Amino acid sequence: MRAAVFVEPGKIEITERPDPQIAKPTDAIVRVALACVCGSDLWFYRGQTPYEAGRPVGHEFIGVVEDIGSEVSRLHKGDVVIAPFAFSDGTCPHCQAGITTSCLHGGFWASGGMDGGQGEAVRVPFADATLVRIPGSGHSEEMWHSLLALSDVMGTGHHAAVSAGVKRGNAVAVVGDGAVGLSAVLAAARLGADRIIALSRHEDRQQVARAFGATDIVAERGEAATEAVIDLTDDVGADAVLECVGTGQSMATAFSIARPGAMVGYVGVPHGVEVPLQSMFFRNVGMHGGSAPVRTYIPGLMEDVLAGRIDPGRVLDFETDLDGIQEAYAAMDQRRAIKSLVRVSSI
Amino acid sequence: MRAAVFVEPGKIEITERPDPQIAKPTDAIVRVALACVCGSDLWFYRGQTPYEAGRPVGHEFIGVVEDIGSEVSRLHKGDVVIAPFAFSDGTCPHCQAGITTSCLHGGFWASGGMDGGQGEAVRVPFADATLVRIPGSGHSEEMWHSLLALSDVMGTGHHAAVSAGVKRGNAVAVVGDGAVGLSAVLAAARLGADRIIALSRHEDRQQVARAFGATDIVAERGEAATEAVIDLTDDVGADAVLECVGTGQSMATAFSIARPGAMVGYVGVPHGVEVPLQSMFFRNVGMHGGSAPVRTYIPGLMEDVLAGRIDPGRVLDFETDLDGIQEAYAAMDQRRAIKSLVRVSSI
Repeated sequence: MRAAVFVEPGKIEITERPDPQIAKPTDAIVRVALACVCGSDLWFYRGQTPYEAGRPVGHEFIGVVEDIGSEVSRLHKGDVVIAPFAFSDGTCPHCQAGITTSCLHGGFWASGGMDGGQGEAVRVPFADATLVRIPGSGHSEEMWHSLLALSDVMGTGHHAAVSAGVKRGNAVAVVGDGAVGLSAVLAAARLGADRIIALSRHEDRQQVARAFGATDIVAERGEAATEAVIDLTDDVGADAVLECVGTGQSMATAFSIARPGAMVGYVGVPHGVEVPLQSMFFRNVGMHGGSAPVRTYIPGLMEDVLAGRIDPGRVLDFETDLDGIQEAYAAMDQRRAIKSLVRVSSI
Repeated sequence: MRAAVFVEPGKIEITERPDPQIAKPTDAIVRVALACVCGSDLWFYRGQTPYEAGRPVGHEFIGVVEDIGSEVSRLHKGDVVIAPFAFSDGTCPHCQAGITTSCLHGGFWASGGMDGGQGEAVRVPFADATLVRIPGSGHSEEMWHSLLALSDVMGTGHHAAVSAGVKRGNAVAVVGDGAVGLSAVLAAARLGADRIIALSRHEDRQQVARAFGATDIVAERGEAATEAVIDLTDDVGADAVLECVGTGQSMATAFSIARPGAMVGYVGVPHGVEVPLQSMFFRNVGMHGGSAPVRTYIPGLMEDVLAGRIDPGRVLDFETDLDGIQEAYAAMDQRRAIKSLVRVSSI
């Protein structure tokens, strides 16, 4: 099969890789229909985290079940499925508690010998537990985009909102206007936030944020951003803060705009972050979040996507095919795209 | 009046201080009946945090209302009251949200010119909002101790449990066997935890922990403590961890024994703590807590104390009077006492 692999920083290319085969009776083989590029893929693309030459890439995809192992019972050949960015057995104590990203037997695509999502096919372990079947047919192109967004960014934005304890009527601040930050705006709106302050400097992203439910935009950064949010909340601070970047500055901003007693829900992998522990203690500001257990959230979010209540696919504003994979990365790297969709085959 | 003041590390003495007077119409003057010494008082006693010579001490007391300002309407002379360790106006946005320790106009006893609790009387600002009247009369000595414990340690232990999200049926681990740690055990039991693992090395404290509801005792420290808790929870980790110390080691232990997705509720003021951010992120372990809004919790906890359902006063295992104040500190410093009660006047 053809699949994208990392060559060196700034270079992703399509190469021939072995066709995936059923290796365990709980496996399925999924032919990838739509994949996308994640903000976290840019780390290795930019050479910021190490990545082996020749290693496959991609962890977000929807596709069609082509083959199943003898113990797969809930899925059938021909089913159209969403793959969350991690696979999980569904039965270990952490899966049972909903933290599927901590599955005792789970793992991640394009890692540890697994196929990547940016390729023609993927062997999926624990297929019954990992994959979520998409019901119905004849969905619109926009709906396919939104279903694809459930493989990572929408579930991750939702995780920020859940971790921050967003409640109906809250004033919520969202730090970060990447695909995850925008998804977090949508998640906060879905959970009933009255006011959603999106910290965003880019006009195209501000537009998506507003379409997703942002009531206020703060374009400033650093201390000016803090002052703006504090002003907007009548000197109180936000009831919940969703941190969707992970840098030292974004986390500092997140803590500084949280009202006493509030939670910072964070989903950006922390890079160079210092936690302001004394101020957190004396203001009772907490933090919770991490690698989102997207699998747990897909069914609930999918219901709202299929009913047309949310359209997280709007963050996919650039499209190409496998041959255009390099451009899919470059467009995001150069901020020409919020998020790139890669059309691999027909559904 | 006579009141305890800090002289130098290791030395607390009784001195003459001006009788407190009503300064604002919302003030009350409370004659102190029972006070106690806090684990946090040991910081300045041991010279670990700076403290001015001659500054009053103490922030936990119950007493009798002796005088009220013209705008005090909910309290009357003769009322017996619990003072939480912070005063608060009850009307600012943070008080309204229950975070009374962040009151915009509040403050702390023995700080910024306020009287200390370890003395004969205290001027109490925002008396209607700050003080909680104790109903009934003829309470037993044990019940007075338990009511006194609501001024700080029981509310603080409860805050750890609330911040960690303790739910009915949970397996909870409590790090720290001081008065707050033991109170946290009691709070977890009150909230319906099925299993409570108390990390405690001292036999007298283990006994109180068991009386408060601990089902398991782990006497080890550091990595051995982590292993023991992980073993006890079938390799899963605790559903909620209550951190009641605040040192680097105790916080490291707390994070290491939390199951993926769990919260560490922390109420020990952090000293030399490094937050294990990467591991928190990838295991989805959060932290919340801080300076406990005890005032918010007193009514609910008092109901259970008066009904005999909880007896947090058991942590007060040493008693003296104002003249014995030095010994009250020394007994705790030398770990001869869990917590010292200072009998100042009759109720």
